[in-house]
Amino acid sequence: MGGDDAPAMVLDGAEVALERHPGTRFMLFGRQDDVGPLLEKKDKLRAVSEFIHTDDVVTSDDKPSTALRNGRKSSMRLAIDAVKSGEAAAVVSAGNTGALMAMSKFVLKTIEGVDRPAIASFFPTERGESVMLDLGANVSCDANNLVQFATMGIAFARSVLGVTSPSFGLLNVGSEELKGHEALQQAASRLRNLSSSGRYHGFVEGDDIARGTVDVVVTDGFSGNIALKTAEGTARLYSTFLTQTFRNSLLASLGYLLARPAMRKLSKRVDPRRYNGAVFLGLNGIAVKSHGGTDALGFAHALAVAIDLVEHNFIAAMQEDFSRLESQSSAAQATAV
Amino acid sequence: MGGDDAPAMVLDGAEVALERHPGTRFMLFGRQDDVGPLLEKKDKLRAVSEFIHTDDVVTSDDKPSTALRNGRKSSMRLAIDAVKSGEAAAVVSAGNTGALMAMSKFVLKTIEGVDRPAIASFFPTERGESVMLDLGANVSCDANNLVQFATMGIAFARSVLGVTSPSFGLLNVGSEELKGHEALQQAASRLRNLSSSGRYHGFVEGDDIARGTVDVVVTDGFSGNIALKTAEGTARLYSTFLTQTFRNSLLASLGYLLARPAMRKLSKRVDPRRYNGAVFLGLNGIAVKSHGGTDALGFAHALAVAIDLVEHNFIAAMQEDFSRLESQSSAAQATAV
Repeated sequence: MGGDDAPAMVLDGAEVALERHPGTRFMLFGRQDDVGPLLEKKDKLRAVSEFIHTDDVVTSDDKPSTALRNGRKSSMRLAIDAVKSGEAAAVVSAGNTGALMAMSKFVLKTIEGVDRPAIASFFPTERGESVMLDLGANVSCDANNLVQFATMGIAFARSVLGVTSPSFGLLNVGSEELKGHEALQQAASRLRNLSSSGRYHGFVEGDDIARGTVDVVVTDGFSGNIALKTAEGTARLYSTFLTQTFRNSLLASLGYLLARPAMRKLSKRVDPRRYNGAVFLGLNGIAVKSHGGTDALGFAHALAVAIDLVEHNFIAAMQEDFSRLESQSSAAQATAV
Repeated sequence: MGGDDAPAMVLDGAEVALERHPGTRFMLFGRQDDVGPLLEKKDKLRAVSEFIHTDDVVTSDDKPSTALRNGRKSSMRLAIDAVKSGEAAAVVSAGNTGALMAMSKFVLKTIEGVDRPAIASFFPTERGESVMLDLGANVSCDANNLVQFATMGIAFARSVLGVTSPSFGLLNVGSEELKGHEALQQAASRLRNLSSSGRYHGFVEGDDIARGTVDVVVTDGFSGNIALKTAEGTARLYSTFLTQTFRNSLLASLGYLLARPAMRKLSKRVDPRRYNGAVFLGLNGIAVKSHGGTDALGFAHALAVAIDLVEHNFIAAMQEDFSRLESQSSAAQATAV
């Protein structure tokens, strides 16, 4: 029921995802009056779906705490409950981000060793694709959180990007050793000595994000959210400028016509729908947040992210990484004693 | 002496600036052996310049504290001293940012009422141009700093953008009232009641920067630096993708040829050299930092920023704004008592 054009957009997206990932089965939670008539027309999707009616729905204005308290019978909550009970392998929603995070955390609980979950997503770079986290779940973070985010980000990059030993860096305002917050300094010194399946690069700066200097950019939720949205805004600006350029003269318009097939490839390459699907990392279950304003193709992409993580046994891998991290730090503490 | 291609790039830039702003006079600080032979060939520039030889130079690796302590006879320091003594109206350097900031602050002192100077610059948006600060001088900031940055940013936008009553907003991770750091919340409540020559918009997000939602984006130096560099990186990525697109096929290359004049306008519009010249705000004197990697045109632009501020009597305007802000807060305190 979440998202600007829900539930139609969600059902259309599920249909696209089913075509791309045959064998997927869906549990659809929502209001019968809204969902029923739409689902009626989708034979293939209906054949692999179970529809669960709920009267109650979390709205985009609900505060996370309100949703948590009063939304026990909401479509969002029941979908998360299905992951907890094992009926569903993952939950995907285009609804209220804060509510989805609060409920997922409450129901699925954090993985042993994770203090705070983080939001991660991937984005285009000059070298391919990279991952960044946290994108907004935690406005302020200590060194411990950042080290955990790094561990989560490495596991995520291994699953989603398929890189065996992802490189990772801490987002800072300079690459020099002595720059940045106290928490960053502490995190850096711990990451240098962390034995993980990733390779620590050191500090990275804002322009390293699009450059693809590292596979995983680790940062607090405040800076991460600002970086993400600044990048989105800049890409949109550039694209507006480009459109204006081609309308600038008759020759330019003609040039555009000739270059159109190539331009379409460019649009596809920077299409934000291809990067839709932010993952709540650090929970004992897969929860994916789609942009509320996306369309069926974008939502299908968020579903693909969830399917990919399920197929990679992502949660088990992450739990294992954290139990290793835990034993590392207890060993370090024992040595320190 | 500062910048990758200095001093040649600096002299070439001064020559360009002189052509664009006839009547400008220069004081050039540097090593005779490096500067002399180059200046020898530039008759027009030499005619309006005074050359001051120094043996000592601040390097890009020098720590700000070292430069401050040991660089009393450096070209950078002497240039700042000339502003202090009134011999020069502004200092412009493409050298070590931290050293330039530390020395400028030490020599020129902060304006009465300013606790910490900030770095400001302007950038392209869908609506024209906007200003953002702080871009990296202060890694962490309290509410007081942010309110002062807003006051400085408004004065800067009035001078540089020529907007009589600039709109301004606080960079945050959501536009809702309750989001973000404690310092942001406090600053927001003070800015709502601030009587200034600007209009307070409220919180803005990362994508509002390129959208041009406000004339002045106010933030701490950590987020501001990350936003600035993320935007630069994204613009570069988009431009790389675009070049690859046009090389994609023969038709696309032909299309590019036809659209070339329009594409040149686009390049010009997003040319980072047009936005070169970050200003240290809050000091009793004009200090402008050029990118170290820029060329003559970029450096000429940094010089143009300085000339513009001098012509607008910027420092006097700023001093006046702060004395008004001071009397406002003492009035508020008196009322509170």
